[in-house]
Parts: sequence; C-alpha cells; structure tokens
Amino acid sequence: MTIVSKNNPAVKSLAALKEKKARRERGAFLVEGEKMVRECVQSGMEIRSVAVREGYRGDTYGFEPLVFGADAFAAVCDEKTPQGIAAEVGIPKFAPEPPDAPCLLLDGVSDPANVGAIVRTAVAAGYREIYCVSCADPYSPKSVRASMSGVFFAKIMQTTREEALTVLAGVPLIAADMSGENAFSFAPPPLFALCIGNEGNGLSESVAARADRTVKIPMEKETESLNASVSAGILMYLLKKKSFETK
Amino acid sequence: MTIVSKNNPAVKSLAALKEKKARRERGAFLVEGEKMVRECVQSGMEIRSVAVREGYRGDTYGFEPLVFGADAFAAVCDEKTPQGIAAEVGIPKFAPEPPDAPCLLLDGVSDPANVGAIVRTAVAAGYREIYCVSCADPYSPKSVRASMSGVFFAKIMQTTREEALTVLAGVPLIAADMSGENAFSFAPPPLFALCIGNEGNGLSESVAARADRTVKIPMEKETESLNASVSAGILMYLLKKKSFETK
Repeated sequence: MTIVSKNNPAVKSLAALKEKKARRERGAFLVEGEKMVRECVQSGMEIRSVAVREGYRGDTYGFEPLVFGADAFAAVCDEKTPQGIAAEVGIPKFAPEPPDAPCLLLDGVSDPANVGAIVRTAVAAGYREIYCVSCADPYSPKSVRASMSGVFFAKIMQTTREEALTVLAGVPLIAADMSGENAFSFAPPPLFALCIGNEGNGLSESVAARADRTVKIPMEKETESLNASVSAGILMYLLKKKSFETK
Repeated sequence: MTIVSKNNPAVKSLAALKEKKARRERGAFLVEGEKMVRECVQSGMEIRSVAVREGYRGDTYGFEPLVFGADAFAAVCDEKTPQGIAAEVGIPKFAPEPPDAPCLLLDGVSDPANVGAIVRTAVAAGYREIYCVSCADPYSPKSVRASMSGVFFAKIMQTTREEALTVLAGVPLIAADMSGENAFSFAPPPLFALCIGNEGNGLSESVAARADRTVKIPMEKETESLNASVSAGILMYLLKKKSFETK
C-alpha cells in the first residue's frame, strides 16, 4: 500500500532523522540513494527500515519496504533529487578506547561537509579510529553524503574533549599548526593521533596544550591556510607516506 | 545618503553579480566580507565599487562607498550573515597561454565549493596557472568564498577543452586515475599539467586520451575515490614533494 500523505507517521518518523534531536533520541540516521544504501547493507550496518518511492524497481536487500508517493518520499529525503530509496540505519555506538593504529582527533570541526569529507579520506588512508569532539554531527545527511560510504566503515567515537584526552593518554598528539614542522620531512612515531581543529579558530586550548608535536603543510606566502578537509587529507597521507610508498 | 530600497538600481546591480549571466556580461564578480575585501585590495585586483551597510566603521580603502540599509545590503550579499562590506571587482582576463610551471587543468569540476577549494590549495602549493574547462564558475560567490583569497592570486584561464589542449601541446598531462602509478613513488617531469576531472565521471574522453601518464592516490579497499578537492590537494602536494621537502 502506498503512503501518500506527508503527515503519515511513517513519513514523519523517517523525515525527523534529518534533525539531530531525533537522531540522538533514536540512535539512528538516514541513508539515501541506491549506492549508499547498497554499501550500507554490504558494510553490515544495522538497517532498521527501508523506504522506496512508488515505482522503484531496484534492490531492497530482503527488506519489505515502506512505499511512499513521490511527495511523501521527497519529504523524507534531504537530497534535492532523491533516487528512490532511503533507509533508517542504527548509529553504531563505540565507547571511546585507545587506538590500535594512527587515528584522528577532530576537535571542533563545524562544517558537516568537512566532517564527512574527512571521514571519507580517513577510511581511504587507514585512519579508522576517529575521536569526534564538539564537531558537526557525522551522521547528519550532509556529512553522510560527503563521507560517501565512509561513515559505514569508520569507528567514530563521539565524546567529550576530556574523555578523548584521557583515552588518548600515552598516545602522541600531533597538531596541525602553521608554526609546526614541515610535514614533508616529519617522521611520525608508529602510533599517534592527528589533531584537526575548527575551520576558523584551529584547535581548542586544551588539545593544543596536550600536543606533543606540531606539523604544518608548507605554503606559498599569499596563503595562510587550506580548507580543513583538504589539509586533513594531505596530512593524513603525508604522515603515513612510508606505508604508502610501497602500496 | 543611505539607500534603503532593495529595488534601487545600485542594489539590484550589485545583487545581480550573484548570477553568472551578469558576471559574464559585466566581467565582474562580488567580493564579500572584511577580510576578503582587504585581501582583494592588497592583491591589486580592479575594484569597481564598494558598498557598506549603514553603520559600518571599517576601512573602505580610499573608496567612497555606497551606503545601504541593512535589508538592501543583505539583498546584495550571498552570505547568510553579511559582514558589512562588499565590492564589485573586475574579473581578470587571462588569454590561455602555455604554462611557466606545473599547472592545473580542471576538466568538468562541477561543484563551486570544490572549484574554490582547489584554487585555494593551488595558490598555496604554487600551481598558479589554472586552465578551467566546463567547470563551475570560479567567480561565483560560493567558489570565491571557498577559495578564500585564492581567486585573487591565481591565473585562471576559462577556456574550451580544445583550446586548452592546444595551448598545452608539448606539456605532459598527468591524469588523476585509480589505475595510475602510485603518487608516492611517482617522479613527475619538471613541467606538467595535473588534470582533475568531474566529481562523478572523472576526466572527459578527450583529456583522458591526451594524458601522458596517470597517477593514483593509494587507498584502502573499502574506498574507491576521494572528494575532488581533497584528492586534487593531495596530488598537487605529492607531485611537488621534492620542492616542499626543503621548504
């Protein structure tokens, strides 16, 4: 049976996941589009429900989907041109624990597109463990979209600054900072947390104070900074260059 | 005298620069915010007019500004929270000519935020000469903002694919491609054009066919690509690593 009213509870319930409040209360987020839903299923995430637009002919991965009329489906989606399938997916809960490998500490990254793009690069570069402190919600539609399927594979630990620093006690913190060592000649320790700060204001005082070393991307004189997701990407790759040279 | 009506010709004229049509007809674009206008003036760009919101107390760099009421000023700006100053600036016209140093060929990059972020990184990494083919307009408000002051310092050549390839005859084209050589062990020629394609579809057939070599960023298996501005940033820096190691 097709649900056509935007006021239907099933429509409202799914649409609510565009807002942080509902995501937090239900521990769930919205995944939109054929490719994203497919990769979400393949990654083993907890799919709670699947909704499709009437007439959708693609795979629904064994789920009995809710079928929405075009307007109702559009109301659920954040994408401007929805692709016909969306899913409610459980947010994986990872208690903060010390990292097994080089990891990321995101300290106040406020643009959801940056958070998502950083998660995307982190999975590509092998920084799976991501401590998220005072950041834009990695599970917002914008961030999920920017991460491509990155949020399905990363171990994202949303926590407080204090707890992150406690869990990372003993792990060298490497802070991105314009006064730091040149990233091209920087020899990192085997285990470290790369710290990326806010787009405008950089790292918080408490993280900066705890940093063991600082690293910079060299730049021509007209430039004082790069986009947060671009500089995070360059640093993630440069700090693991030894392992990538032979890959 | 303060202009309060949004229908005042001076307001409409400046606001029109948010649209590509007016930018093209007048060869001008809009620069918003204190920092951006200051850096624009310092860079030597052609400032055609300056507008401020009533009550603005900052520098106007020797220009007699148009003074707009708050609503009229907000109508001019693309920013959600305008800072009180904006300027109409001439778009520098660079006829396509062969590059003097490693350069960029942007081939169908369609997201203005990506175009801007790439320009920002290009200026930082010393890729000043940028050939722009079938891309989002680098002078749109979104792109200008994402470039920070990058668009003031880059030599952006907006041209056709055919003309770009003609001007770049004899210059090795290095295409970003997942089947390419590992960027970490790649030894580039002294002069080259790094080619960055569309976010979804990659390079056009004609640019791909002309590529002399291909280069990839190694990635973990769950990932098939990175954000276009992130991968462009990583590649720009890695292909010039020899010069950055000693910087």
